[in-house]
Amino acid sequence: MTQSSKPKSKLRAAILGASGYTGAELIRLLQRHPHVEIVLITADRKAGQPIEAVFPHLGGEGLPDLIAISDIEWAGLELDVVFCALPHATSQRIIKGILHETGHGFIDEMIIEQTEDYANAIHGSVKVIDLSADFRLRDADTYEQWYGGKHDALSLQKEAVYGLSEHYREDIKKARLVACPGCYPTAALLALIPLMSEKAIKKDGTIIDAKSGVTGAGRSLKESNLFTEVSEAMHPYGIASHRHAPEIEQELSRAYGDDLLVTFTPHLIPMNRGELETIYVNLEDGKTADDLRDILKKQYQNEKFVTVLDEKIVPATRNVRGSNNTQIAVFEDRVPGRAIIIAVIDNLVKGSSGQAIQNMNLMFGYEETLGLEQMALFP
Amino acid sequence: MTQSSKPKSKLRAAILGASGYTGAELIRLLQRHPHVEIVLITADRKAGQPIEAVFPHLGGEGLPDLIAISDIEWAGLELDVVFCALPHATSQRIIKGILHETGHGFIDEMIIEQTEDYANAIHGSVKVIDLSADFRLRDADTYEQWYGGKHDALSLQKEAVYGLSEHYREDIKKARLVACPGCYPTAALLALIPLMSEKAIKKDGTIIDAKSGVTGAGRSLKESNLFTEVSEAMHPYGIASHRHAPEIEQELSRAYGDDLLVTFTPHLIPMNRGELETIYVNLEDGKTADDLRDILKKQYQNEKFVTVLDEKIVPATRNVRGSNNTQIAVFEDRVPGRAIIIAVIDNLVKGSSGQAIQNMNLMFGYEETLGLEQMALFP
Amino acid sequence: MTQSSKPKSKLRAAILGASGYTGAELIRLLQRHPHVEIVLITADRKAGQPIEAVFPHLGGEGLPDLIAISDIEWAGLELDVVFCALPHATSQRIIKGILHETGHGFIDEMIIEQTEDYANAIHGSVKVIDLSADFRLRDADTYEQWYGGKHDALSLQKEAVYGLSEHYREDIKKARLVACPGCYPTAALLALIPLMSEKAIKKDGTIIDAKSGVTGAGRSLKESNLFTEVSEAMHPYGIASHRHAPEIEQELSRAYGDDLLVTFTPHLIPMNRGELETIYVNLEDGKTADDLRDILKKQYQNEKFVTVLDEKIVPATRNVRGSNNTQIAVFEDRVPGRAIIIAVIDNLVKGSSGQAIQNMNLMFGYEETLGLEQMALFP
Amino acid sequence: MTQSSKPKSKLRAAILGASGYTGAELIRLLQRHPHVEIVLITADRKAGQPIEAVFPHLGGEGLPDLIAISDIEWAGLELDVVFCALPHATSQRIIKGILHETGHGFIDEMIIEQTEDYANAIHGSVKVIDLSADFRLRDADTYEQWYGGKHDALSLQKEAVYGLSEHYREDIKKARLVACPGCYPTAALLALIPLMSEKAIKKDGTIIDAKSGVTGAGRSLKESNLFTEVSEAMHPYGIASHRHAPEIEQELSRAYGDDLLVTFTPHLIPMNRGELETIYVNLEDGKTADDLRDILKKQYQNEKFVTVLDEKIVPATRNVRGSNNTQIAVFEDRVPGRAIIIAVIDNLVKGSSGQAIQNMNLMFGYEETLGLEQMALFP
Repeated sequence: MTQSSKPKSKLRAAILGASGYTGAELIRLLQRHPHVEIVLITADRKAGQPIEAVFPHLGGEGLPDLIAISDIEWAGLELDVVFCALPHATSQRIIKGILHETGHGFIDEMIIEQTEDYANAIHGSVKVIDLSADFRLRDADTYEQWYGGKHDALSLQKEAVYGLSEHYREDIKKARLVACPGCYPTAALLALIPLMSEKAIKKDGTIIDAKSGVTGAGRSLKESNLFTEVSEAMHPYGIASHRHAPEIEQELSRAYGDDLLVTFTPHLIPMNRGELETIYVNLEDGKTADDLRDILKKQYQNEKFVTVLDEKIVPATRNVRGSNNTQIAVFEDRVPGRAIIIAVIDNLVKGSSGQAIQNMNLMFGYEETLGLEQMALFP
Repeated sequence: MTQSSKPKSKLRAAILGASGYTGAELIRLLQRHPHVEIVLITADRKAGQPIEAVFPHLGGEGLPDLIAISDIEWAGLELDVVFCALPHATSQRIIKGILHETGHGFIDEMIIEQTEDYANAIHGSVKVIDLSADFRLRDADTYEQWYGGKHDALSLQKEAVYGLSEHYREDIKKARLVACPGCYPTAALLALIPLMSEKAIKKDGTIIDAKSGVTGAGRSLKESNLFTEVSEAMHPYGIASHRHAPEIEQELSRAYGDDLLVTFTPHLIPMNRGELETIYVNLEDGKTADDLRDILKKQYQNEKFVTVLDEKIVPATRNVRGSNNTQIAVFEDRVPGRAIIIAVIDNLVKGSSGQAIQNMNLMFGYEETLGLEQMALFP
Repeated sequence: MTQSSKPKSKLRAAILGASGYTGAELIRLLQRHPHVEIVLITADRKAGQPIEAVFPHLGGEGLPDLIAISDIEWAGLELDVVFCALPHATSQRIIKGILHETGHGFIDEMIIEQTEDYANAIHGSVKVIDLSADFRLRDADTYEQWYGGKHDALSLQKEAVYGLSEHYREDIKKARLVACPGCYPTAALLALIPLMSEKAIKKDGTIIDAKSGVTGAGRSLKESNLFTEVSEAMHPYGIASHRHAPEIEQELSRAYGDDLLVTFTPHLIPMNRGELETIYVNLEDGKTADDLRDILKKQYQNEKFVTVLDEKIVPATRNVRGSNNTQIAVFEDRVPGRAIIIAVIDNLVKGSSGQAIQNMNLMFGYEETLGLEQMALFP
Repeated sequence: MTQSSKPKSKLRAAILGASGYTGAELIRLLQRHPHVEIVLITADRKAGQPIEAVFPHLGGEGLPDLIAISDIEWAGLELDVVFCALPHATSQRIIKGILHETGHGFIDEMIIEQTEDYANAIHGSVKVIDLSADFRLRDADTYEQWYGGKHDALSLQKEAVYGLSEHYREDIKKARLVACPGCYPTAALLALIPLMSEKAIKKDGTIIDAKSGVTGAGRSLKESNLFTEVSEAMHPYGIASHRHAPEIEQELSRAYGDDLLVTFTPHLIPMNRGELETIYVNLEDGKTADDLRDILKKQYQNEKFVTVLDEKIVPATRNVRGSNNTQIAVFEDRVPGRAIIIAVIDNLVKGSSGQAIQNMNLMFGYEETLGLEQMALFP
């Protein structure tokens, strides 16, 4: 890599899968980052179109046109960083190619060839930030069980660093592949890891009731995502079967030091952005809600993107809309021995593209907040 | 009362507090009820106005103008039923007068006098359906603790029947005062009473994570209810301190046969109507989610307004919008020994005015579904 | 037809194309109509499914399962009325078959055969109410120009009655094929036909700025109808090129007695239901806004579904949501010689399925308001 | 003033009226402006509170607490710029004091005294950017007629520069008092001034059909602004009587060189931000829609905040949400001699606080885009 003592003045960045909402959000934020130049954006189904044909709000910025991944001419691109916002399963295939773990017949020949060209061209120095689910789970069997297929890049699965910036900061700084957490895990883990680590709450009985705006479902054409189906309505989905559950459990088990399960229920809410988790925990004997708040306040006292609110202050998604901020608050339950924790994020920013850029800043030695200073947009 | 063998062909009905949303919903539904004539509607701050000045969607129906309660000339009204959609504390005062429990100095003189006139005029035969919280709690101390003042009509508090139609049907038929449940308790109790009664779930550890549209907050002028504050946003409120918690606990304790507490967290969702509760329960040893579903299916098999969904069918608020229907579904949790129950209602219909009319039908010997046959309005 | 002096007690009704929103709305309303039995519902892509799998809010009513049109066994159905909620072009093909105008090779053989069977079975007595655009335009060339193909049922195109109930009432009563107006034309024509007929406004210069909720776009899977694209956003579409323009012009030219053009711009608004048209007109010399209001009031004084508001009362879509009502108001412009007319309807009810049922009532000799008495659902 | 050859490195800024949405938006944008320090924020009814108690999304920024205007200690503040986001009528009173036009008994004594102290302290060098309507109209009689009271600062009314940045740039650079345009006039004038100036459209017959999100109505507690009243609903307001009409007419008359009137109808749309105007114009003989587009393209070719779209590209409010951008497009009407122009802005940014900051940049010699580079937030 080029940065040594001093970070590079302009990183050459690619965004693979730029026609979805996380891709658009990466563009929105990276395009104003003082040290990034977007040199490549891909979208297979929209190949050949200018970005403003796909996202009119991103026009007029001199961005390159969208191309298909198979049409990338890697030689000469001299990429420093690749953001991968592709569907799971596809991601691992592409990233394996990019990181030169090729040669096993599982990649389309053209891509292999291309990526080998590229790999030769870049001398192995590119770093990859993956926004898919492909490298979040460390265990190959768990991946297979929840994602319905064998992992194609096992060595990379082992190598990848889990990109929850506040808790894996030092590892992220050294990584060449970072797996950004899912939106639901991001909020849940920021709230729960410190409490599990300190055993301030019991291992069992944690319930995460999550509510998300519709951007969490992406831009795909499903009847259930039509305005007329979602507006003036709400419902749960993936009850006791959502793929973010094992991801949360992986990290909480690690924090607690023992395997554990959580109850997790996401709900679709008629709004674009915003995610709120209401988390019910069992206090460890002798612990109080105040203790939990103190632990979290201490943990995050120097963090720019996590605010632990004072007693009785209630988080709201509107307070973080469009920003990389997280709000967490702890409340005493009326039921003895229990506490209620509320965490809110913008699922497209801290829950996805914002955290990806926060990780990029870490990986390349920039100030962690660069490009992420936006205050929330309210109303 | 007039009904004996055969119900009256037209009940003369009054709605006290008709300028709020529950009042408007009562008008919408009663005005199409084949056996009701609305002869009186009140709204102190809007007195003198025609209803279409306050609710343009209710115009053109020949309804009486709004008057102040103190201006009611009871003599000659010959009311059969009074729907009381007034604020708590006010309700008990007015209802006490109406039901002739007057003469104790706690009612404004004018009202006492008026209501005594009325009481004489109607020979004590009027029935009252209260939509406020005043007669929901049976225990005077609990009322005082949660509502911040002594109850002014203790004998009526004892007499009042809790108006959860499906579970107090026989008592409601004989009542002269019915206290309609709160919207949150309606959904929670329909889901939980049968399970508590049969001890299919454990007494402790029940968590009710509730989400409501904004009509639940009424029509009062609060900054937090402005479109710009609510739209594209969500937040919890009344965390571990909402007044519907003791109401739920009262009924569940009764069903289980022992005092119990529940964890209850309501959330404000950017939509007009609809309430969804995600309820986490601990299964009694040996019981399964299927057992819970079977119990609920059996309980409600002949009920017109409660549908227990088959396995894996997910309730959604849009399925009951504008209707008196309830949908309940049971899901197995991944965490052993637990189940997740989802219940949805329209908070203004089954959660309020619709259930009030269902109770009226019971009290006056009509078919229980009369005036409540509307199918849900979707989209 | 079966009605002679006295209407039939139960009409046997079919809904072709029941998986869209107009189909669902027909079911919602017809299922509570005292003189209708729904005996057939079709949806080619959802064939074989129960209606609650497609529209959960319509479950529990004992409706028949959805079938494909080609699988209908017409014999024995004994249909009295067919509601056709199919795409344009398809509609004319099917309706031609149903009304026995077959035998020309332009219908799939199976359908021809089927429909001939049916035609024989029903002795030609069925009546058809079409909700598509296929029979709205009377001129074959205009149809071809705007809908991009020759009309396949020219004799039926001539025979069809334009189903604007308030203005074609007598023709509708005698029709066997009624073409229900588009949603935009319905609101515009109710406001403008009386004014054009009386030449109270000038022939030229009428501008219709229309705003519609998203149900107007149907349930089809288009990226532009996703919640995330529509919510917190608005835009015009079909500017100076929308197919409802020639339909409006056809009827206004007829009312005025001379060919005319209108400017028509529809806009997509982030709400489910509701349509509002702001209509700018040039007053005929000597006429005032008050004159226009008087004309409209006189025209609609006995109409149940059209309310002309008093001076300064402003229509709002929420006043008619879910109902078959129309609100119209006239305002004086500051610019001399001009007036502004506002008209609102629920696009799915008066703008579509409600008016279809109003027409059915006329065609079969029922009270015109039967099944359409619902008050608006607000909030 | 401090800027001469080189602009000041940090302006000391005050925001009067910081508890409304325009105030909040000023804070959001100014707080990230590289050359601004917010040293004073006022809100009379919220005096003494930290800003995060009023706007939680603005917390954690080290902003001063809100104070009452009468409690400002001007001495020592050394303000460079004052943003005045107060109600009309109040604005003129306060600004008159600030700009040292005091001593006439029309200001509360305390304020006079205070502001005189301040005026002395600042040596008359402060500049004022007013977001109210008080200095938009140049004619005293017109002001009185539309705002219901005599103007109290006539000499300032004459002096004030109308802050439509793109059209009064040179005047704004030299101004000490800039009156920022209303949100509706901003969009209308950007679209129409060049066309009127070049007489490409006729003087008469222009119709502006405007649609706005609810933030345009401010944060005041009105029943009509409640979520439940606005959501899933729309209606026009101020029909032929809105105060932005004379403002538009003032500027268009000036551009055209002759007095003219416009038809103007605003509508309330269920969304937070965004304003769309559909403008119907009569083409001057021989002119076409293409001519209009060419004129606008030429006019704005070097403007960063105004984009004139190519033929057939349709503007949408989501494309400018949260940004200072304007989109304008021209369409040919089917009616000969007419064109349809669509203009969209974010009412809180280009329509209010963003344009105010654009003006500040001009007034103080900064790059015009500073602090306003945000790309639109979509979805």
